[in-house]
Amino acid sequence: MAITQSGLYTDFYELTMAQGYFCSGKTKSVATFDLYFRTAAFSGGYGLFAGLAQAVQSALAFSYARDDIAYLRSLGFHDDFLAWLSAFRFSGDIDAFREGDIVFPDDVLMRITAPIIEAQLLESMLLNIINFQTLIATKTMRIVSAAQGRAVMDFGLRRAQAEASMAATRAAFIGGAIGTSNTLAAKEYGIPAMGTHAHSWIQSFESEYEAFKTFAEIYPQATTLLVDTYDTLTSGLPNAIRVAREMESRGAKLNAIRLDSGDMAYLSKKARAMLDEAGLGYVKIVASNQLDEHLIESLLDQQAPIDIFGVGTRMICSYDQPALDGIYKMSSINNSPTIKFSENPEKINNPGKKKVIRYLDMQGKFFIDALALDDEPESAIKLIRHPAIAFQKTAVNRSAIRPDPVFFPVVRAGRQVAGFPVLQATQAFARERFAMLPDEHKRFANPHTYRVGLSERLYELRQSLIEKRLHNA
Amino acid sequence: MAITQSGLYTDFYELTMAQGYFCSGKTKSVATFDLYFRTAAFSGGYGLFAGLAQAVQSALAFSYARDDIAYLRSLGFHDDFLAWLSAFRFSGDIDAFREGDIVFPDDVLMRITAPIIEAQLLESMLLNIINFQTLIATKTMRIVSAAQGRAVMDFGLRRAQAEASMAATRAAFIGGAIGTSNTLAAKEYGIPAMGTHAHSWIQSFESEYEAFKTFAEIYPQATTLLVDTYDTLTSGLPNAIRVAREMESRGAKLNAIRLDSGDMAYLSKKARAMLDEAGLGYVKIVASNQLDEHLIESLLDQQAPIDIFGVGTRMICSYDQPALDGIYKMSSINNSPTIKFSENPEKINNPGKKKVIRYLDMQGKFFIDALALDDEPESAIKLIRHPAIAFQKTAVNRSAIRPDPVFFPVVRAGRQVAGFPVLQATQAFARERFAMLPDEHKRFANPHTYRVGLSERLYELRQSLIEKRLHNA
Repeated sequence: MAITQSGLYTDFYELTMAQGYFCSGKTKSVATFDLYFRTAAFSGGYGLFAGLAQAVQSALAFSYARDDIAYLRSLGFHDDFLAWLSAFRFSGDIDAFREGDIVFPDDVLMRITAPIIEAQLLESMLLNIINFQTLIATKTMRIVSAAQGRAVMDFGLRRAQAEASMAATRAAFIGGAIGTSNTLAAKEYGIPAMGTHAHSWIQSFESEYEAFKTFAEIYPQATTLLVDTYDTLTSGLPNAIRVAREMESRGAKLNAIRLDSGDMAYLSKKARAMLDEAGLGYVKIVASNQLDEHLIESLLDQQAPIDIFGVGTRMICSYDQPALDGIYKMSSINNSPTIKFSENPEKINNPGKKKVIRYLDMQGKFFIDALALDDEPESAIKLIRHPAIAFQKTAVNRSAIRPDPVFFPVVRAGRQVAGFPVLQATQAFARERFAMLPDEHKRFANPHTYRVGLSERLYELRQSLIEKRLHNA
Repeated sequence: MAITQSGLYTDFYELTMAQGYFCSGKTKSVATFDLYFRTAAFSGGYGLFAGLAQAVQSALAFSYARDDIAYLRSLGFHDDFLAWLSAFRFSGDIDAFREGDIVFPDDVLMRITAPIIEAQLLESMLLNIINFQTLIATKTMRIVSAAQGRAVMDFGLRRAQAEASMAATRAAFIGGAIGTSNTLAAKEYGIPAMGTHAHSWIQSFESEYEAFKTFAEIYPQATTLLVDTYDTLTSGLPNAIRVAREMESRGAKLNAIRLDSGDMAYLSKKARAMLDEAGLGYVKIVASNQLDEHLIESLLDQQAPIDIFGVGTRMICSYDQPALDGIYKMSSINNSPTIKFSENPEKINNPGKKKVIRYLDMQGKFFIDALALDDEPESAIKLIRHPAIAFQKTAVNRSAIRPDPVFFPVVRAGRQVAGFPVLQATQAFARERFAMLPDEHKRFANPHTYRVGLSERLYELRQSLIEKRLHNA
């Protein structure tokens, strides 16, 4: 059983609250919780939603084994609550974006409606899964977009945060990585496994030449030679060229050389010139040293002739922002909309059981997202309002924009009602959706903010709850 | 089976190289690899070594199941190699620091000596485990030291990098956290589980007062009330005080209030004054909003009357540096010392099969670490040299310093020869060792660099290999 399916994979306070709800007669209270994030990661313009399949599978399998119950009993939980808990199965509804869709701050990524104890117990697990996979998928899509069509491989296992390597590899594939060095994840998720040799291979031979030669003999179809063990330009390249020529004499072809230290722009240009001069124009150049979207963008700006990027640490643990601030807030209890108040207007949640409607412009590009109450027909939406700034509103002009379904039922009464595509299809879907995002939201520096607004009804509901709260205080 | 015990939990190139060693007749070649890091995390002065137990258990269990072999066959690996691989069991030696010891850049944290294929196949898994747990244990010790004796709890599950939450919680406990919100990790590792309630508990009641009152009735022994759902000072505190007085009338006592938003220095002072004025001097204040060592230091500098810190994101995924740069370098092959050359002097590894000797000063504080060849008796070491700067040397004056054993055999010929203490003992050991580190290495800003040098013999060996390499080039 995956650990995320254990009923104990939760913050302890969820259990304390669950027993509290149980003891205070709230077992039948039905709540809706929204899972969303408030700001885009990396000061970027978008997120790439990932982790849904694991989140839903974990929600449906979430349960307490006999020794989990015994453990909780040892901590002082009551027998009647534990009897209830030992029969726990999620019986509610889940709606969500499709995995691989482009999402924005305030979009409801997942909506859980269930008896409050059930929805509460899932909170930490859902956040743990969605926050991380969405973060890594988003990071990878940024890196892949910077590579402008060149391949990006995931080489991050050794610097990944422990077992997060598995979910990270999956999310990176959704984000557009073509393969991974993580062999277990490759097997598990059907992702191409990639990699050739390290410095130790070279060091285990008397000479670099002998090491290259032996490797090329064993792997004539897929030889990539790492050229920086001793010196890239005076040793690695000359030896690789010598071996490439020997391969040609046997009818084989050297696939690539790999640069792993030093200045990638300088070395790739020198290496390209040396290879071309030796008549080895077909030999590709792989680069793999502390790469991220910014460095790749800069290398390509400098016309570095790199064909393939091996990206490790900075992608697999999302080095410059290792956590997404996704949250899980109650928006309704027993059909009453509810807010969590805050002096920061952007921290007040959007109340009520809601859905997300996305509008496309006439070119088929994403134009605006609207949060609306679940029972509002799309056709009734005339105006989309900024949640806090009163004068910011967008008229819904149906001759210029059209709705695009983004928010779907996934679980109904504890049963899965939507399937999950294979990972390759999710990767293709993400690529397709990314193509629908206008370029100004893709920029790394100060991207244009995509609008996510409220329907008039939702706006008014929110305002009325804020007013009520202010008068009560 | 833990995923780190799967023989596929490895970078693909380890398998490609393994088959290469196999095909080129190196199955009997014995290599030594050193696992170490080159720079201390967080621009700090030390590391806290963690992850050894899992790393060793995984090394000893590392193997290939039938379907792993079938998977590798589908990728084109040869039958004779796969036959060898299906019988794979680590048969070599491992030496290491004790888990919980304080370590420094260039210290050999783990040394693996085994047939080269075996040592190579373990590389990615060992780095994946040790890099992460050492990082989180180090981060936690920094946070705990900033808290100056006040308790630190781990609240990070929802922002942890997926399943890394488990290893992170373990490492945070070694680093000095007193408990965790991660209930599964609490059960698994015998760590106290902690937490009370969230905003949703408050929102599920008609009023904050009713929510507090109900919670206090259900948990009279351990009530901590979260006071910021509506407004900390005008709503949360007055309601908490009212409930605390009601508890007193029943002979119970409110344990604490928790602040989770706003300025912690301002609010904790106001809250302390309100509680004290109400005669509730015993009610503790818990703070939990984006804390790390720097913010805690600053809060305590401002005399914020906080008793307990709940630390999440910034500790559990080591927000300001989410990866440690630990590496695994071959130092010897068939009893010949070897180096990986680099134009950066600090990137040239220390050759040969080595051990680490730590010297204490007369006050029992850590003084200097020496790397020495495995067969050098400690008594023969007269001088400890900087690896690169020729004039930096420290004489070993045995009337002023004495050796302290830090590097131990853990596995011999594939069998574990040292036990692992329970986690509480490892936490206590870490605290004890941290007390032996002079304060100047603990400072967050520009800490003094602890010296890790080479014995004369090792220094000369390294120089001779560098000279040889330069003459060959």
